[in-house]
Amino acid sequence: MDGSTGPDRRTVAAMRRALAASVEVHGTTSPNPAVGCVILDRHGEVAGVGATARPGGPHAERVALAAAGPRAAGGTAVVTLEPCNHTGRTPPCVEGLLEAGIARVHAAVADPNPVAAGGLDRLRAAGVDVTLGTLADEVALGPLRGWLHRTRTGRPHVTWKVATTLDGRVAAADGTSRWITGPAARGTVHDLRRRMDAIVAGTGTVLSDDPALTARRPDGTLFDHQPLRVVVGHRDVPPGARLARTDEAGTADVLHLRTRDPGEVLAELSHRTVVDVLLEGGPTLAGAFVAAGLVDRVLVHLAPALLGAGPHAVGDAGVVTIADIVRLHVDEIHRVGDDVVIDARPASGPTGPDVPQ
Amino acid sequence: MDGSTGPDRRTVAAMRRALAASVEVHGTTSPNPAVGCVILDRHGEVAGVGATARPGGPHAERVALAAAGPRAAGGTAVVTLEPCNHTGRTPPCVEGLLEAGIARVHAAVADPNPVAAGGLDRLRAAGVDVTLGTLADEVALGPLRGWLHRTRTGRPHVTWKVATTLDGRVAAADGTSRWITGPAARGTVHDLRRRMDAIVAGTGTVLSDDPALTARRPDGTLFDHQPLRVVVGHRDVPPGARLARTDEAGTADVLHLRTRDPGEVLAELSHRTVVDVLLEGGPTLAGAFVAAGLVDRVLVHLAPALLGAGPHAVGDAGVVTIADIVRLHVDEIHRVGDDVVIDARPASGPTGPDVPQ
Repeated sequence: MDGSTGPDRRTVAAMRRALAASVEVHGTTSPNPAVGCVILDRHGEVAGVGATARPGGPHAERVALAAAGPRAAGGTAVVTLEPCNHTGRTPPCVEGLLEAGIARVHAAVADPNPVAAGGLDRLRAAGVDVTLGTLADEVALGPLRGWLHRTRTGRPHVTWKVATTLDGRVAAADGTSRWITGPAARGTVHDLRRRMDAIVAGTGTVLSDDPALTARRPDGTLFDHQPLRVVVGHRDVPPGARLARTDEAGTADVLHLRTRDPGEVLAELSHRTVVDVLLEGGPTLAGAFVAAGLVDRVLVHLAPALLGAGPHAVGDAGVVTIADIVRLHVDEIHRVGDDVVIDARPASGPTGPDVPQ
Repeated sequence: MDGSTGPDRRTVAAMRRALAASVEVHGTTSPNPAVGCVILDRHGEVAGVGATARPGGPHAERVALAAAGPRAAGGTAVVTLEPCNHTGRTPPCVEGLLEAGIARVHAAVADPNPVAAGGLDRLRAAGVDVTLGTLADEVALGPLRGWLHRTRTGRPHVTWKVATTLDGRVAAADGTSRWITGPAARGTVHDLRRRMDAIVAGTGTVLSDDPALTARRPDGTLFDHQPLRVVVGHRDVPPGARLARTDEAGTADVLHLRTRDPGEVLAELSHRTVVDVLLEGGPTLAGAFVAAGLVDRVLVHLAPALLGAGPHAVGDAGVVTIADIVRLHVDEIHRVGDDVVIDARPASGPTGPDVPQ
């Protein structure tokens, strides 16, 4: 917190609502951050809610101000990210807030982008009451997570997702793996995919599992937003693969990167303004990303089941002895249907916590 | 529930206290069940609490009645297990309750033992108000679990405990495994061991990890009750093994069963009136027990960490294809220090739920 006192309950509730608004648009704003904003009028009542529009459209603050109209004057803006102070495809949000006569701004996290930052300083200089830090940890783990990571590190944020048994197997001895986890957990994967800019799988997974790598609704139809599908490895993708069939995926657009080097993969995706990457296996590729320290979030869908044989969740990750074990920090555990989802991140090192400093 | 209405809050609270009393003595009563009993006086106030004494000593009801003294007259007995109706080394508890003038008895679970059962019927015939089922599921998963299982099936109850990484490894590629889980989780293992009648490990584990298989307090001293230590397999235990050293274990008593057949192991332990068995590895033995359907409880201590290589939690369990996957039901998930503990059981088959029918 910048201020000397903590945020009041109304500010926290408004920030939660701003966060929820940003979740709605997560996956449609890249390369812009998915921000949420709530405008409270001078009496503290919600006057407008907004979230980042698609690229080229208005930012969250502008959307919320438009919804609030004249009720914004003398009111409060509660926003997940520090309002921008630069002119891109849209004029600075800071100007919009000042023009609307906003008296107070509560932001969750600071903008680490040196070009756009300084918004809170500019507002403070103009006499606006400003605080930073409301629900900061929660917001930093939300839709802004990948964008904050990319802005700080210059590379896309990588979520590695794996569906495994309690004994760490991703398929049976004969290679069959449909299904290890239940329908509820598989549904959350599709929801995750539609938030992502790219999905990465190895050629081994494409050849053995023939995945479509699309984001689908429970009824099988495609979500509006589909991530870029990326196949990594030297082998060819067979012409009949589901990945390459327009009847399965709506588009046959697939990026095939003939490398196994995670750094090269991320550099190529970064050039394409990819922010959020979902790594969906297999074990060899996952091991290479883990070994390179390029996994930022680990999402394990754990089926309460045992196989006793079959391929593992992670292949060689460069660990030979217990002292070199890759420790993770668990952010959350929850049950989805019969399965257990463990949401974790590397406990230390260059891929450590993305929470505000 | 036997009665037409559910138990009142006071009965539930008393049953919880009876359960807690039974937890205190769990591990010291075998082959008798670890039962807890609370006597409420005629005003519903707690007049006495008791738990099963060591074999040859009084049962829980007798201990609680002695504590209550004359206040038991016209009162209520709340007991985790149906009071026994037979004369063993001690006279039937039912007679004790009647002599004390108890007016109501609430039991959690019925006694499945045909010799001792019928206690509630006998009480009802004598005019006592009787119910069955208060907190039945919770009690059945408590200290009585192994005893109920053995009474129903004729064989000991097997808890398989394993400490593994998120990717299912129990050691690094070079065999090192100290420590995968943290001190808090390891402490719970020692508490579990002191509740058990026997701990079983394979010769492979003895040769590679050299475990003492003792139950120790956090300060390293031995608990009063030590389970029988059982080594399974054809190879010899080296003379210098910690297992065989009196300075480490207080006793060098170890049962070495030169077999790899889980059925033979349990038959031998059953002859020795073992009720609760803790199976502590390694992968080969765990796989054999899983394949034989002889694991009744699976306790996975999951370290949020990755290894990418090294021995697995479970070796061959006879599963070749995904349709034969061994499904588990998760009873509970909790965090212990940095680790996650998953408490599960086979979802179906002869080793299924041990809850009252």
